[in-house]
Amino acid sequence: MAIGAIDLGGTKTITAILSDSGDILCSRHFPTESKDWKVHFDLITRQFKDCQKEFAEKYPNEVLLGVGINVPGMADSHNGVLMYAPHQNWRDIQVRDYFRKSLSIEEVFIENDVNACAVGEMVFGNGGSDFLWLTISTGNGGALVANSQLVRGFGNCAGEIGHMKVEYEHPRLCACGQRGCLESESSGTAIAEIFNEEILRNKLFQNEVLKFEEVNPSFKRDAAGLAQLAVSGNSTALEIYKQVGKYLGRAISYGLNLSNPEKVYLGGGIAKSMNLFLDEIKNEIEKNVVPAARTVEILETKLGYHAALLGAAALVKINTKRYHS
Amino acid sequence: MAIGAIDLGGTKTITAILSDSGDILCSRHFPTESKDWKVHFDLITRQFKDCQKEFAEKYPNEVLLGVGINVPGMADSHNGVLMYAPHQNWRDIQVRDYFRKSLSIEEVFIENDVNACAVGEMVFGNGGSDFLWLTISTGNGGALVANSQLVRGFGNCAGEIGHMKVEYEHPRLCACGQRGCLESESSGTAIAEIFNEEILRNKLFQNEVLKFEEVNPSFKRDAAGLAQLAVSGNSTALEIYKQVGKYLGRAISYGLNLSNPEKVYLGGGIAKSMNLFLDEIKNEIEKNVVPAARTVEILETKLGYHAALLGAAALVKINTKRYHS
Repeated sequence: MAIGAIDLGGTKTITAILSDSGDILCSRHFPTESKDWKVHFDLITRQFKDCQKEFAEKYPNEVLLGVGINVPGMADSHNGVLMYAPHQNWRDIQVRDYFRKSLSIEEVFIENDVNACAVGEMVFGNGGSDFLWLTISTGNGGALVANSQLVRGFGNCAGEIGHMKVEYEHPRLCACGQRGCLESESSGTAIAEIFNEEILRNKLFQNEVLKFEEVNPSFKRDAAGLAQLAVSGNSTALEIYKQVGKYLGRAISYGLNLSNPEKVYLGGGIAKSMNLFLDEIKNEIEKNVVPAARTVEILETKLGYHAALLGAAALVKINTKRYHS
Repeated sequence: MAIGAIDLGGTKTITAILSDSGDILCSRHFPTESKDWKVHFDLITRQFKDCQKEFAEKYPNEVLLGVGINVPGMADSHNGVLMYAPHQNWRDIQVRDYFRKSLSIEEVFIENDVNACAVGEMVFGNGGSDFLWLTISTGNGGALVANSQLVRGFGNCAGEIGHMKVEYEHPRLCACGQRGCLESESSGTAIAEIFNEEILRNKLFQNEVLKFEEVNPSFKRDAAGLAQLAVSGNSTALEIYKQVGKYLGRAISYGLNLSNPEKVYLGGGIAKSMNLFLDEIKNEIEKNVVPAARTVEILETKLGYHAALLGAAALVKINTKRYHS
């Protein structure tokens, strides 16, 4: 049995067919370019059908169980609707019905991207009955699993860890328009901004960066570049990442006090540098969380780069009753 | 059919028998005095049996379905264990087995007190599938319901809204030893402290308080007294309650971003004064919560003074399968 998965991201889309255990059997990668959802959905349909063709040739006896789709925004998974995708400004799109028809597949499931990652963690990752899932990438997205169930919330917008306030006195402006959100202090975008502000503010650091650039031609002045600098031992870079950890720790602490999870999974590109800020997260937990909820484990997700795609596939596994019978 | 309920509070205990719809048919009230749990549990047993006797005389044909007990601390409800009650310093007490034996009743259920209030809200109150329950009383306790289920957390300590940090720059010391917890800024204890500090700091306010005391002999310099002053139009008292609302709003905002509830229920004595701080809570929600999660309703619980006792009774209703058959 195999599973169809569509990772419809804000900037890129992947269509794939995966094995029962989450191995990618074939896939197509392409940019999410068109602002017209129908144009992009037609492209997805063609690419997915192309995967299906390759899959049928390679595995002639395998059956496709269904298709899971994650979307870059608020999703009403019960009704299969993408409610709002901020990057594309798409609103109220009946995603499930569209792909049921265009792919001629009945079992189609949709979910918000980070929620899908959390479902992926349950199905293909380390799992657990009570956990938080937090992306540290361009932005900060979150998901909450409690009592072995995804918490979607009353209006399908639970898990907004990225917009919890972590700084009230000297808050940075967030893309959402509010101030002091986790995302305005500890996302990839924020880290790059803070990095570049520090270069302008601090001559000594500026010189250190210039020297580092000379010997590392591929170096970029972004969050990954700052992590390279920090790993090389640069004290200012290390300090900035400590501050990132402090704010991540504050946001995670709210989640621990409220929902007392067993684990917190970190995903997204910056999670790979978690050695640079894990101690500071733990330090904040020690200061901000009731003793009984401090026993949490903070782990990098095992889902890796394809977390969202695996999440899309996982939607099919948890939703398809046929599968378990 | 009737329900037994025991509200084992930090300072007082109630044993009662309630009707199916939550009316108190008979009850006994007595202080939680002894630090020896066995001594107090024996007293509870005698008082409950006394209720049973009265109940049997008044309602000879009614059957008692079971007994629900709420406890003032962390509870492992699955195993019927009171894990820790800070006020009494009780640890690891097998409450369920004790009362099963002492009362000769098989159906005994225990739960943390604020969690029990949330269950009470589901069974006897306004209910809902996704809500927060928050006490504003001596302390600030909380509970989270998501997907129509109580979220107990991995270590049975979810819902610690009172220890979410709401002030980082000028934090007050909390009884828990940490700083800037909601409870250190917006509990009854904190409000009384802030009130009395302001009297010492502010001569004009001191005179206003002295005048108010002359004409209101029952006036106390506590949270309820401050509310009286505020209702009378005193601007300093109103300002203090606005600040209380600001901090409540910050803590509630974390909960809204994470779990996107439909409702927030406020309980405890100070919730009765919510007119004094509701606008400020809403103001904070506007500043701190993603738009889609702002549609929440903030309501005073309908369970009233006996919220915890009704919660204890509700435990029997949701746990007893016989009841529904």
